[in-house]
Amino acid sequence: MQAMNVLIVYAHPEPTSLNGSLKDFSIEVLEKLGHRVEVSDLYAMRWKSQVDADDFLLDGRNEPLNVVRSSKEAYETRRLTEDVMAEQRKLLWADALIFQFPLWWFSMPAILKGWIDRVYAYGFGYGVGEHSEKRWGDRYGEGTLQGKRALLIVTTGGWVEHYSERGINGLIDDILFPINHGVLFYPGFDVLPSFVAYKTMDIDKKRFTEITAQLRIKLENLFLEKPIPYRRQNAGEYNIPTLTLKDGIKVRGQGFRIHQN
Amino acid sequence: MQAMNVLIVYAHPEPTSLNGSLKDFSIEVLEKLGHRVEVSDLYAMRWKSQVDADDFLLDGRNEPLNVVRSSKEAYETRRLTEDVMAEQRKLLWADALIFQFPLWWFSMPAILKGWIDRVYAYGFGYGVGEHSEKRWGDRYGEGTLQGKRALLIVTTGGWVEHYSERGINGLIDDILFPINHGVLFYPGFDVLPSFVAYKTMDIDKKRFTEITAQLRIKLENLFLEKPIPYRRQNAGEYNIPTLTLKDGIKVRGQGFRIHQN
Repeated sequence: MQAMNVLIVYAHPEPTSLNGSLKDFSIEVLEKLGHRVEVSDLYAMRWKSQVDADDFLLDGRNEPLNVVRSSKEAYETRRLTEDVMAEQRKLLWADALIFQFPLWWFSMPAILKGWIDRVYAYGFGYGVGEHSEKRWGDRYGEGTLQGKRALLIVTTGGWVEHYSERGINGLIDDILFPINHGVLFYPGFDVLPSFVAYKTMDIDKKRFTEITAQLRIKLENLFLEKPIPYRRQNAGEYNIPTLTLKDGIKVRGQGFRIHQN
Repeated sequence: MQAMNVLIVYAHPEPTSLNGSLKDFSIEVLEKLGHRVEVSDLYAMRWKSQVDADDFLLDGRNEPLNVVRSSKEAYETRRLTEDVMAEQRKLLWADALIFQFPLWWFSMPAILKGWIDRVYAYGFGYGVGEHSEKRWGDRYGEGTLQGKRALLIVTTGGWVEHYSERGINGLIDDILFPINHGVLFYPGFDVLPSFVAYKTMDIDKKRFTEITAQLRIKLENLFLEKPIPYRRQNAGEYNIPTLTLKDGIKVRGQGFRIHQN
């Protein structure tokens, strides 16, 4: 297989944790496959999580902050902070992006959310393409990161049953939908089904071997696996500008799943 | 009406923003109703977002960090940091909690996620009650914050249609489910239907007046409105310990909505 570029954005405070071990394992497997791997270790980088006026190196910094407007202007004039621009360059370099994190409160740790909030500037992560009553931007299948692949690697203390179709936490694919669809498919990524390790409170050697064996297969197929078939915004299935599925579009079931074919 | 205690946890970097105005408006309305209001203005407080070893004032701080174990020990021995313990005291004081934030990437800003990640310590936000094969803790309707009410006040640039049943972003109630159900109902809050202001990119005076008129009604009913009827974990509808809805439980539809009556 051709050598590809893989960016792992990793969010766990403890290098010797299960997450740290899985991150190291992923690097090893991907490099053995011949890929080039770059890791953004957010805790090690002391990543700044909060969006604020310091993110935008603009003249009028004492004016009231309008996040969207400042983000747009700073991105266009290359006056975002260097930490943010470095991550944007890594994204452009990557053929595949992996977010690796423990599921905390049914979402990602704050530090990773802060990576998205800051790196996805207007004009880069959103606000791409024509926005009018006839066209609502290049997004959900199109955008800056189109043609690249993305994968979540997630650990959770809960059981697989707790995250099943009738499990109390809600179906894991629904819990991850705002990330897979709203954060990754949105700027154009092809999104793979997530890799989730359950019941991670006490992992013995046997269980770790099982998890890594499954993860190895997942990583070996990073550029081969079929992505989640989300519907593309601009492929004719949605009304513009209300962005509702057209009446003629038959869906299976209810909830987030109607947005995939 | 009886005077109640209301905690507003507010996450926006700009005081003169729509969010800032809505926060000020809420304080005014609630105080006129006779309630006592406390605000945690996370940006103004320079809230620390990331969970790390500094959160736990324990002896073995140079050991590898196990977040759950350290959180448990630090909570039990009152060796969490003062900023976290102050927020826990505010939660215990409050009769109602309001999270107010702009929807960024289909979730809350990182700084607010970091408030949850840190304030919801083991023994306080989770890990409450007996955990065994017969009982899976006091959660989802029971827990430390049982008997209190909670409400999200959210702004978003998208249109109401984009967040409707067939809208491309997914139904707003589904997007907010991991917060309403997973963060608020989990430690025991009765959760009210969320207040969402749409299309907030350019709000003129007329639109602001409309939004605040609706918000006033919402706040006037903070202690009167019927909560979302989520199913309680320990009320007999879920199998223990798999926490799946029992076979006999009839549900309407698919997805997150099956977890409400």
